[in-house]
Amino acid sequence: MILVVSLNPALDLTYEVDAADWAGVNRPHTVHVRPGGKGVNVARTLVALGRQVRLAGLVGGSAGAELADLLAGSGIDLAFTSTASATRRTLTVVDRTRDQAALFNEPGPVVEAGEYAEFAAGYRAALSGCDAVVLSGSLPRGVGAETYAELVAAAREASVPVILDTSGPALALGAAAGPTLIKPNLPELAHLTGDPGLAASGKDRCRSGAIGETSMSMVEEAARELERGGTRYVVITLGEAGLLAVAGSDSWLARPGERVTGNATGAGDAVLAGLADGLLRGLEWPDLLRRAVALGAATVAAPVAGQFPGEAHQRHIRIAQVGAR
Amino acid sequence: MILVVSLNPALDLTYEVDAADWAGVNRPHTVHVRPGGKGVNVARTLVALGRQVRLAGLVGGSAGAELADLLAGSGIDLAFTSTASATRRTLTVVDRTRDQAALFNEPGPVVEAGEYAEFAAGYRAALSGCDAVVLSGSLPRGVGAETYAELVAAAREASVPVILDTSGPALALGAAAGPTLIKPNLPELAHLTGDPGLAASGKDRCRSGAIGETSMSMVEEAARELERGGTRYVVITLGEAGLLAVAGSDSWLARPGERVTGNATGAGDAVLAGLADGLLRGLEWPDLLRRAVALGAATVAAPVAGQFPGEAHQRHIRIAQVGAR
Repeated sequence: MILVVSLNPALDLTYEVDAADWAGVNRPHTVHVRPGGKGVNVARTLVALGRQVRLAGLVGGSAGAELADLLAGSGIDLAFTSTASATRRTLTVVDRTRDQAALFNEPGPVVEAGEYAEFAAGYRAALSGCDAVVLSGSLPRGVGAETYAELVAAAREASVPVILDTSGPALALGAAAGPTLIKPNLPELAHLTGDPGLAASGKDRCRSGAIGETSMSMVEEAARELERGGTRYVVITLGEAGLLAVAGSDSWLARPGERVTGNATGAGDAVLAGLADGLLRGLEWPDLLRRAVALGAATVAAPVAGQFPGEAHQRHIRIAQVGAR
Repeated sequence: MILVVSLNPALDLTYEVDAADWAGVNRPHTVHVRPGGKGVNVARTLVALGRQVRLAGLVGGSAGAELADLLAGSGIDLAFTSTASATRRTLTVVDRTRDQAALFNEPGPVVEAGEYAEFAAGYRAALSGCDAVVLSGSLPRGVGAETYAELVAAAREASVPVILDTSGPALALGAAAGPTLIKPNLPELAHLTGDPGLAASGKDRCRSGAIGETSMSMVEEAARELERGGTRYVVITLGEAGLLAVAGSDSWLARPGERVTGNATGAGDAVLAGLADGLLRGLEWPDLLRRAVALGAATVAAPVAGQFPGEAHQRHIRIAQVGAR
């Protein structure tokens, strides 16, 4: 069983409108309500990959109740701790005419110390039955930046592999606690290493799928620095340019086999699920990365955020380009 | 006890942002969640006026549960019927920098025949203990346009005064069933009488608070036509220009005593509550209209939609200008 932790899940609302009137009344022709948040996306992808998943985290209020309702029947074993403060909503207004989207992220709940303590006790108890732990997403207010570091340490004590995907101080502190794998993107890598040039140099090139050798060497060196800081494996997500992984003495680059356009929401979470699944299968790194990058590509191409058709995944596995650096 | 019917209530979300990015990520600095819908506003105002109120209607899903939770402790006696389909959300994005607001109204639930039948049975049973009925707001999908006409007829059979405030075919059919009072605004009046010129001629002048005598005569004649159609009292809301009422052989005009700026949301519902309260008090029309127009003005001036400070109401009662036509 893989234990996925989502401390700040969200109820995702999407309103589709034709030519939004930002100073008037709009009647969305389509409303989607979905369980959201990075940990939730990871859990769903892992289930789709055939994994047994327990999802632990904090939910509250009617948005939290709806989130849990929407996940009932998903095949995920839900182990949420209740909070008095309500789960956040994230709203996307998709303007079909202008082909643009506005996102509104609510500030979310303020978690009380007793509520977090209840979650943490459940987390520690669950570790003994786990094959791996995935810690994913932002921290709610009231939960300190050191939280993931503590959860990483507890997993290490229990000899359970632990994968961390977050940002800011929570990632910096968590990475220093020695997780099995972290998966920063370029802005996160820049923040972690204190080198803002890293994000700037690579970002536009990643968008075109072609990142120059100089930039790639900078990225690899930064990943090595994180590895020396205590993380066993470091996988950098490069957007359309794929994944760069450092593992032991080896470095690998995995690129999607074709340019994919679509909805990138949840693609990073799908990659994370693919990495967790591959590690547990004991795959060699080239094969593991091939499957993970293909999962990201299939997710981008799927019409609904965070889903992927198995057929597309298989095709992207076949065409992905993976090589040692 | 006043029975207020809200067949299509809403959970109102308001996001306040500084300079919205309609093609990017926004983090609202303030999120308000309030029970909404016209019937709900009327019920709250009536409670604030000291009335005993039962609120009946249809709610479903997590938005419906949150709506009911938010009304617990409001002093309103809640008598909702549950629907499988979820209560709608109405979202307002307030852009503080541009001083504009975008509204997004979800299409709302689709009510099943059995659910409406359950509501209707409860409505008929409640009539015997009622001093008055207020039917307010739009109809959800699955509930026919003849619905208010049937509810009006049932109230008349039970000899309970019934006030109707809605729009479109539901208002046309409901008005023909002979309610005690209807309160259309100019666009609704134009729709009811089939004279589009009515709305166009009066609307801009209403905004300035000064509506010409020619327009006012047209409005009065249209109100008289509705009275002849079977409604006992017709009160037309003229925006800043106040209220025009036809009652028996008399016509009255009530204007706010000063120009009021602010949030007009819920002002019409406050006027409706004032009219219901005044009718039950047995007030003479000039006094009744004075109190109702003052309630609307105090609600516009209040910082939060649908609330009014009692002191402001009293002051607006003193300064309102009411006269026979």
